Amino acid sequence: VVGDAGAPRSVTSRALAVLAAFDEAHSRLTLSQIARRAGLALTTTHRLLGELTAWQALERRDDGSYVIGRRLWHLGLLAPVQLELRQAALPYLQDLYDATRENVQLAVREAAHALYVERLSGRASVPIRTRVGVHLPLHATGVGKVLLAHAPDELVDAVLADLAPVTTHTVTDPVRLRRELGDVRRRGYATTAHEMTLGTCSVAAPVTDPGGQVVAAISLVTTASRPDLAQLAPAVRVAARAVTRRLASARP
Amino acid sequence: VVGDAGAPRSVTSRALAVLAAFDEAHSRLTLSQIARRAGLALTTTHRLLGELTAWQALERRDDGSYVIGRRLWHLGLLAPVQLELRQAALPYLQDLYDATRENVQLAVREAAHALYVERLSGRASVPIRTRVGVHLPLHATGVGKVLLAHAPDELVDAVLADLAPVTTHTVTDPVRLRRELGDVRRRGYATTAHEMTLGTCSVAAPVTDPGGQVVAAISLVTTASRPDLAQLAPAVRVAARAVTRRLASARP
Repeated sequence: VVGDAGAPRSVTSRALAVLAAFDEAHSRLTLSQIARRAGLALTTTHRLLGELTAWQALERRDDGSYVIGRRLWHLGLLAPVQLELRQAALPYLQDLYDATRENVQLAVREAAHALYVERLSGRASVPIRTRVGVHLPLHATGVGKVLLAHAPDELVDAVLADLAPVTTHTVTDPVRLRRELGDVRRRGYATTAHEMTLGTCSVAAPVTDPGGQVVAAISLVTTASRPDLAQLAPAVRVAARAVTRRLASARP
Repeated sequence: VVGDAGAPRSVTSRALAVLAAFDEAHSRLTLSQIARRAGLALTTTHRLLGELTAWQALERRDDGSYVIGRRLWHLGLLAPVQLELRQAALPYLQDLYDATRENVQLAVREAAHALYVERLSGRASVPIRTRVGVHLPLHATGVGKVLLAHAPDELVDAVLADLAPVTTHTVTDPVRLRRELGDVRRRGYATTAHEMTLGTCSVAAPVTDPGGQVVAAISLVTTASRPDLAQLAPAVRVAARAVTRRLASARP
């Protein structure tokens, strides 16, 4: 997300470039780090930081570093992904957690990644790598396989052309994965075993919008030693269908 | 949050005024609504909307209205209130939910309001008015009383000077509320009964940062018919203390 210092830019785009300097791996940045990542002069960056901090889009910490401010967080909560999808899904995610005590996740597709919108897990659930707002590869996760199974052909082709292994069990053979995606569409759910994190497996099912488009996926992630993985599929599918029904009834 | 059209403004502040047009009651706006709420000319607003939409800070819906975009949502997730507080608290909130099956909430103080950062509730929990990102009055909620009990004197004075009734049970007598705030500090928890929503009651306890400041509150909201409200206080206090310990151990 590093800007190109040479290109002509509007003032708005410079302010947005300051915000874009922040990401999952860079949630706390100094003035000079922001200037470098945004491709802006220090003086310009300093002035923009002043305006953005005054508005509480950013906050300045005691050590002089900058973080995303509460006002931007608050504004982000108004996005449909949160206000519509996450709100509609939460009670059903909670039901699924109640019934299984396993990690329960809700994700959407963002380009070639699964973006996690919600995750519920108790102290007894198996430790996993997801967190709200994190991107994980489509081909290595249960939700990702569901989203990929319903993605446009061009995206599927692009993903299949570059299947990087995350663990030694990640499916990297495009022929095998394409067959699996067909199974996902036929059966209505996807599974993974050790493909994203060794020792865990998952079952995932699609959430559909009122127009019939798959807009999200719900998954259950559990220990790979659990012998009844396939038996969990109906619970995940029922929860995903419940969210689908909720989205249909909420639409004007 | 309506801007004043007469004041001189930087381009950045105009772009921020466009974003500030959105709030809980205005999560979907047309061009002309945004222009009016931001106090900007239509042409200026149109140009800014183009830039903000291209960056995915906003999204344009099929009906021509604008909503907060996924990128702003995603960026907001990097705020410390989400990345540090919410992440640290979530497993303990889940434990509290597991143990009680009631609504569990996490809130911080924003000026004279309680701002809800997280809420867990199953299908069996009593229906309540909170939602992540919502502001509720300090004096009418359990989390609010905890946060007010540990707020600066000037803020307490200002809140006590204007105690609006939310229900017929809301405490509107400043003398009584000041006494209650003392009780909250002594006992380590706050309670409400029918004060925010008729038919519900709550117990809330403080979360403290490593410097000893109360930075958040956790509450349990249940039906007022539940006879053992005071018996729930230890569970809420234990969960709040667990989050306090987690915040202390996470700090470098």
